[in-house]
Amino acid sequence: MTVAPRPLAATRGHGTLNDFVLLDDPHDELDLTPALVRALTDRHAGVGGDGVIRIAPAAAFGADDEATWFMDYRNADGSVAQMCGNGARVTAALLQRLGRWDGVGELSLGTRSGVKRVRRVEPPALAGPQRGPWYAVDMGPWHLVGGEAARTAGFDAQVRVAGLAVERPALSLDLGNPHTVLALAGLDELAAADLTVRPQVTPARDEGTNVELVVPCGEEHDPALGPVGRLRMRVHERGVGETLSCGTGACAAALAVRTWAGDGASDRWLVEVPGGTLLVTALPSDRVELAGPAVLVADVQVDLGSLGVDDR
Amino acid sequence: MTVAPRPLAATRGHGTLNDFVLLDDPHDELDLTPALVRALTDRHAGVGGDGVIRIAPAAAFGADDEATWFMDYRNADGSVAQMCGNGARVTAALLQRLGRWDGVGELSLGTRSGVKRVRRVEPPALAGPQRGPWYAVDMGPWHLVGGEAARTAGFDAQVRVAGLAVERPALSLDLGNPHTVLALAGLDELAAADLTVRPQVTPARDEGTNVELVVPCGEEHDPALGPVGRLRMRVHERGVGETLSCGTGACAAALAVRTWAGDGASDRWLVEVPGGTLLVTALPSDRVELAGPAVLVADVQVDLGSLGVDDR
Repeated sequence: MTVAPRPLAATRGHGTLNDFVLLDDPHDELDLTPALVRALTDRHAGVGGDGVIRIAPAAAFGADDEATWFMDYRNADGSVAQMCGNGARVTAALLQRLGRWDGVGELSLGTRSGVKRVRRVEPPALAGPQRGPWYAVDMGPWHLVGGEAARTAGFDAQVRVAGLAVERPALSLDLGNPHTVLALAGLDELAAADLTVRPQVTPARDEGTNVELVVPCGEEHDPALGPVGRLRMRVHERGVGETLSCGTGACAAALAVRTWAGDGASDRWLVEVPGGTLLVTALPSDRVELAGPAVLVADVQVDLGSLGVDDR
Repeated sequence: MTVAPRPLAATRGHGTLNDFVLLDDPHDELDLTPALVRALTDRHAGVGGDGVIRIAPAAAFGADDEATWFMDYRNADGSVAQMCGNGARVTAALLQRLGRWDGVGELSLGTRSGVKRVRRVEPPALAGPQRGPWYAVDMGPWHLVGGEAARTAGFDAQVRVAGLAVERPALSLDLGNPHTVLALAGLDELAAADLTVRPQVTPARDEGTNVELVVPCGEEHDPALGPVGRLRMRVHERGVGETLSCGTGACAAALAVRTWAGDGASDRWLVEVPGGTLLVTALPSDRVELAGPAVLVADVQVDLGSLGVDDR
């Protein structure tokens, strides 16, 4: 099969079905315009994805001696994003396949919210059969927006969700981006929630908020990890709608349930999102780590002429 | 960039945003299981598409001396489809790029509904700027289900569409598959129709029906083609829901409007679907031709292991 004219090399990959068009740009040569991002992520006319990740030299993004490579993340609408936990794992998987990271030591990956440390890890046995390797990303610090008072009360907000009868108490967290987490009574309620409608959060947060609906499913014992909490969740992403997976949302959900569980709660949580399973670990000093799969689906040669955008 | 392990070569293409994963299988070697079709067409975990088109030797599908190549079309759910007008154009574009058809003479393409004749044509000036070549496909015979009585009355069914106040008269056509076409008063009504809900057709047709909502937009003069009618349409595909384009639906819409226009109506109709513009030509002997663009977006090397399906 001949290669298309004016090809742009890309890779399609996903982490728990959060999917990306990855562009390897080792010499910082690609002018990734918003129009090109929109054309590439278009699921009918382009390659399709929730976003584009350009892997560029970290030096091109300002002096940072720690990181060699930078994850230049763009949302499907062409806007710039600070960070994407699922995307960081897929970026690490591609850097490993490209031979730029050995997968043994720690990868220091530049992002717009600072250098993130990535390790290759064994998938937990409790997560069930997995397709391909897992990676863990230190997602950095988190805090309860309502501080000690919210921790004691267990909530500091109310959320009304379409499809559910009454308003529910919820907990506000900050993971670099805003989250509001509410617990539901069971999987029936989780299925009944209508997330085609944006949940109403009171008091409203100025910057808006992601909303996580969670059902705690008890604690289990993993042979390698010890006690691990399990929870099921759905997420409504700010400005997007319901998605199949949200990395910071999974962290927020686990940290909220851990807060509700109080002293002696597990530091490890398996979070089942619609797109798969993630492992959230509460680290010392109020940091959090997100681990999960990264799948490289296909290498792609895109005919830029077919997209109808400039290929400068 | 290294090629993924266990790669399957494919091409992504679309006709008026009706998009496909094309597999070139010149030696009839690929076992295209329903599971593989579902995995390839998955828009998050796979390559993404409305269907898969395997280009196979026509001889493998029984004796037919006319056609060399066969369009083995599968719906995204893995089921077999008879024919796809948008897909036939994209198949022709790939056969031309592969050098198996010169693009000058007529291509005889085997399908499950017989041999289809495809020609490369100039895009009509009235269709506006185009990205890439156009192809015309002889879609075969059509007829009014209600015969001469329906032609005289102009309708033989009633359709209730969510979002529109009253039931509308409609015309039933057969293009190898069933269609029911109703005219709306204007573009406001077309926008107001809610096609997330299946339109209710009375009398119900045993096999179900595709439903086309059309707004005739008058007649124009094309320098090459002469008088050309124009219409805007939306379509609810049987068993699928609203789609961005439906080839037989565009034909049915144009043929219904031509029937309503009566003697002296144009034989050529530009049909604007959500995914682009198609040209429908009423041929002698109650046959119909569909012309439109075919875009080959990308060549793809799929890692079958990442899909979690057998790659026999």
